[in-house]
Amino acid sequence: MAAPAQEPTLVKKDAHPFERAQLEGLMTKRFFYTQAFEIYGGVAGLYDYGPSGAALQSNIINYWRNHFIIEEDMLELDTTIMTLSDVLKTSGHVDKFADWMVKDTKTGEIYRADHMVENVLEARLKGDAEARAKESGQAVADAAPTANDKKTKKKAKSVAVKLPDDEVSAYHKILAQIDDYSGAQLSEIIKKYDLRAPASGNEVSEPTEFNLMFESNIGPTGQIKGYLRPETAQGHFVNFERLLDFNNGRVPFASAQIGKSFRNEISPRAGLLRVREFVMAEIEHYVDPENKNHARFHEVEHIVVPLLHRDVQKAGETTLKKMTIGEAVRSGMIDNETLGYFIGRIYLFLEAIGIDVNRLRFRQHMENEMAHYASDCWDAELLTSYGWIECVGCADRSAYDLTMHSNRTKRELVVQVPLKEPKVYQKYVPTLNKKVLGPAFKKDAKLIEDTVLGLDQDQLKALQADLANGSASVQANGSTFTLTPEQVAVEYKTIKESVRSFTPNVIEPSFGIGRIFYALLEHSFWAREEDKERGVLSLPPLVAPFKVLIVPISSNEQLSPLAQQVCKRLRKLNIPSRIDDSSATIGRRYARNDELGTPFAVTIDFASVAKGTLTLRERDTTAQRIGTVDEVVDVVQQLCTGRLDWTGACQKLPAYTGTQDVDA
Amino acid sequence: MAAPAQEPTLVKKDAHPFERAQLEGLMTKRFFYTQAFEIYGGVAGLYDYGPSGAALQSNIINYWRNHFIIEEDMLELDTTIMTLSDVLKTSGHVDKFADWMVKDTKTGEIYRADHMVENVLEARLKGDAEARAKESGQAVADAAPTANDKKTKKKAKSVAVKLPDDEVSAYHKILAQIDDYSGAQLSEIIKKYDLRAPASGNEVSEPTEFNLMFESNIGPTGQIKGYLRPETAQGHFVNFERLLDFNNGRVPFASAQIGKSFRNEISPRAGLLRVREFVMAEIEHYVDPENKNHARFHEVEHIVVPLLHRDVQKAGETTLKKMTIGEAVRSGMIDNETLGYFIGRIYLFLEAIGIDVNRLRFRQHMENEMAHYASDCWDAELLTSYGWIECVGCADRSAYDLTMHSNRTKRELVVQVPLKEPKVYQKYVPTLNKKVLGPAFKKDAKLIEDTVLGLDQDQLKALQADLANGSASVQANGSTFTLTPEQVAVEYKTIKESVRSFTPNVIEPSFGIGRIFYALLEHSFWAREEDKERGVLSLPPLVAPFKVLIVPISSNEQLSPLAQQVCKRLRKLNIPSRIDDSSATIGRRYARNDELGTPFAVTIDFASVAKGTLTLRERDTTAQRIGTVDEVVDVVQQLCTGRLDWTGACQKLPAYTGTQDVDA
Repeated sequence: MAAPAQEPTLVKKDAHPFERAQLEGLMTKRFFYTQAFEIYGGVAGLYDYGPSGAALQSNIINYWRNHFIIEEDMLELDTTIMTLSDVLKTSGHVDKFADWMVKDTKTGEIYRADHMVENVLEARLKGDAEARAKESGQAVADAAPTANDKKTKKKAKSVAVKLPDDEVSAYHKILAQIDDYSGAQLSEIIKKYDLRAPASGNEVSEPTEFNLMFESNIGPTGQIKGYLRPETAQGHFVNFERLLDFNNGRVPFASAQIGKSFRNEISPRAGLLRVREFVMAEIEHYVDPENKNHARFHEVEHIVVPLLHRDVQKAGETTLKKMTIGEAVRSGMIDNETLGYFIGRIYLFLEAIGIDVNRLRFRQHMENEMAHYASDCWDAELLTSYGWIECVGCADRSAYDLTMHSNRTKRELVVQVPLKEPKVYQKYVPTLNKKVLGPAFKKDAKLIEDTVLGLDQDQLKALQADLANGSASVQANGSTFTLTPEQVAVEYKTIKESVRSFTPNVIEPSFGIGRIFYALLEHSFWAREEDKERGVLSLPPLVAPFKVLIVPISSNEQLSPLAQQVCKRLRKLNIPSRIDDSSATIGRRYARNDELGTPFAVTIDFASVAKGTLTLRERDTTAQRIGTVDEVVDVVQQLCTGRLDWTGACQKLPAYTGTQDVDA
Repeated sequence: MAAPAQEPTLVKKDAHPFERAQLEGLMTKRFFYTQAFEIYGGVAGLYDYGPSGAALQSNIINYWRNHFIIEEDMLELDTTIMTLSDVLKTSGHVDKFADWMVKDTKTGEIYRADHMVENVLEARLKGDAEARAKESGQAVADAAPTANDKKTKKKAKSVAVKLPDDEVSAYHKILAQIDDYSGAQLSEIIKKYDLRAPASGNEVSEPTEFNLMFESNIGPTGQIKGYLRPETAQGHFVNFERLLDFNNGRVPFASAQIGKSFRNEISPRAGLLRVREFVMAEIEHYVDPENKNHARFHEVEHIVVPLLHRDVQKAGETTLKKMTIGEAVRSGMIDNETLGYFIGRIYLFLEAIGIDVNRLRFRQHMENEMAHYASDCWDAELLTSYGWIECVGCADRSAYDLTMHSNRTKRELVVQVPLKEPKVYQKYVPTLNKKVLGPAFKKDAKLIEDTVLGLDQDQLKALQADLANGSASVQANGSTFTLTPEQVAVEYKTIKESVRSFTPNVIEPSFGIGRIFYALLEHSFWAREEDKERGVLSLPPLVAPFKVLIVPISSNEQLSPLAQQVCKRLRKLNIPSRIDDSSATIGRRYARNDELGTPFAVTIDFASVAKGTLTLRERDTTAQRIGTVDEVVDVVQQLCTGRLDWTGACQKLPAYTGTQDVDA
């Protein structure tokens, strides 16, 4: 993650400084989420979503399904979480999906190696700054909290010790590259600067690799090894043949999957941003490598997106460039139309669910940051109190995964396209006479055959020439074999191909739903000037956990039947709504629902019963309108399905002046 | 599972006998589901859902969420799959969630013990029947396939050997009770009848227990043991305090959760009916044990449900009794209103998604079948080609789980209800004078304190009397301690309670979504008389994977823009639809979509382009109607959202006579 600079300030409508503790308090109090197994002491990195959080998450997922799967006619999948180890061996996860860890040599406490290095260096730099400030008689402002603050449970304490100038700059350089170090490099840094376990000051062990997949055994014999999937993507790739067949053998098309994935983090931190179990939504879009245009590109090309290009990052800057997706693709900044299309669709999705697009940027990966096979990669990053957080990755994975699975399983994971005009060309083709070859070379015959079939065109041409002279020799496994024209022939043939066969490239938009969920909460959270202790979550009706609060103005029993009736009508329309008939004041009941992000409240008073009217309150403005039960229910339904906004609602319902119910 | 008898016959509309292989072929061909990791050879008991299956499953789940969570204002949860071992130790799963297995003493092959016994005995009985038939000169009809057929990969072969009569009846008795045997009893049966491994004929080992939970470690130290949850229920119970608080401290209320659970089956079989990873939807309804009435009972009491009472089963019968839920509760057949209410809601849910209610029954558990703490339990069973399958369990779990978690964690998982009138009563209350007790008994003081505080009213009364006589003795840990009135006092006090505190009872409807999914497919599957090779899936629009097929009548390019336009309009309405512009005949394209269960097809011909009309085809009747684009889109939307049925649609759109497009 690049260091945030030129950040839009975290200003909310009330202009109070954002306090993460206040939001976190709200999350627990109103049961959005909580640490799992809390009554058993809890487990780090595992979270349970309560009624408000589960409903919000489920609404985000439903909209994702509508926006991507249904709107774009994607092929949905639901593949298993428990994954055969062979599959993850092929994908590289068994060998490479690991972090480096170090152990306190005396207490045995375990740290993620890069986090420990970062932690100790930051503490020393802080101590250095304090010492320098003392020297010059200045006070040092506490640094703003960063994601690093929670990286290890026991944070190294800073001591005011001045460091040599060159060491300060060395530390800064290390911290800038902390994500890129190998185990050996981390080991060298730890030794060179005598970095020690933050909690105890003891020496730490050599860094060792720890695979981040949860491991288990399938069946009673322990012979089938399985892992909990670290991503849903492999479940798409192993089903590619069936997906292609379902799509009548044609590309482009996309598969999509929403589901849980797992990473056995060494030391989870930063709340919902780094967890051991999380929901992902992944799209794998299969495309002809020779044509990455997108039929619906025109629908997004006008959208202006904030881009952080890799050249800008290379220059050490983070200035965002705002331009249309059309410009970005035409100028080559974004590699192709399909990538551009998805960047546009991701932007629209995030905006619709309520993300503050002023705290959104698309950051292109540096060349050394991408996997070697990837041709381009852009992350949608959201600015939170932890800094800029990668929430959606959008990568061109090229043909890598399908090729690897194909090599391993010997299944042809390719697309075949009839050519309009057959392709005619000439090439050298070897023929082996096995009847002669076998007796002549016995056990080496197969080796010779494979070698000859593996020769390239130049080699075959030379082989043909040699054979024409009576004999030719081939090298295999360090031996030389002499072949005769009777054993092998090479012909220069005319080839006519009527089908083009290729492994499709894969463009993968991959969404971390939990991270989006958390960023959305930060972006939606504020407090009213007149009630700073209580927060308001300005979630759009589309995703708000509950849409309507029904508030009888008093506990008088005359009001209850109408409250029940309105609630039932809304339920039948699948609009989640709750009655709050507690004895709290009406203001307090509104405030409690502002905390839940409930966008609308319907108030039932004696005029309602007498005249069949309801007042409708909007959460952000606290404005109230009035109408008949039918009118209000109708407006609420339109508001909740996005067919009407509050301005439109105000045109349909007159303002509530507070006098309309007096003459009842 | 009880033996099926008086089964409604598996008659479909075409009256062809149901062939499971045909349905299974369709499932694979049209990618409803397939064995996971197929290209790697597959893993038993793990299935991937393809586009048709994932969409169907997702529609079932969405309807479940609307029908239960939103309609009934339940509190949704999303708790972790990875579960702390302590939690599952408390729930009993670590000790008891196991099956017995035996191992072939020579090949090492593993069998689930009860399945092996069943398998061998069934083979012997079949051989016996053959031998007896030969004796009497009659042919033996092959038994209908049962779930047992797939219980072991390698099925024991029957050999025509006649058995003694008493052995035949012993075998039948064993088979009838096969689910209830302990390991020791299975061992005895295996030895007594010399049962051997079906594949090899070798002896098998003593039965050993195999825990069915997938085990893993959380974090890098291996010190935190975790299991993949075998049910979602424990995730509800550990969050009970927060849920109750969310509901303002009041019962009744329900929590609900939809998510994956896992069972590491010894030898999975029977397709989707016994798998290692599956989706569950579970409701935990918390209720006052002294009042299990339900406020909305009147909404379901008129529903007639097919009940299989435990008394009927005890008599060895399976006759269903059809009666209203109201009658069943009033007569005491169903224990309480809340159980009855959920049985009604389950019935409505299954009916709405397309289950054939003539192949549905509610079977009450026998007393010895229920957990000791359960007060009543009814399973919704669906009749499939595997027999009657438990698809929804509806159990009254009493206060068991909350009590166990409370005991273990020392948290008070109780509801507190203010009493209208305070409860006044008298009781013996001991007081310990610790200042005197401590010096007198030193390390034993705490033990004595706990012992005295644990005495019941009779014991306290006796203690008071003894103390009045100068001294009393208490027994603890095998020692006797003599206490004086200075150390301990017992008073007969008047107690006034203004709050009633109780552990709520839990009524749990628990849905196996995968089993319902499979049963629904069997109930929906048939073939037309004129096209027996191809199946039709008569799925209701509510759950059908795709709602509308858009069929341009030919590949003429004039038709394509209108097809795209109709498709886009439907997509914007979130109606999943697909264009089939392949070169196949129109009949073949309809047939392919009948296989997918697509309820409607919109046909685009030259009249459509010229006059703006579309024809609308209904899948089951193949009837076609005609209307303008607007009319047809509107009718389709109403059909898909359940606001209109086909009869209603026919009133809005005239029949297509085939001539309307000629005069274009």
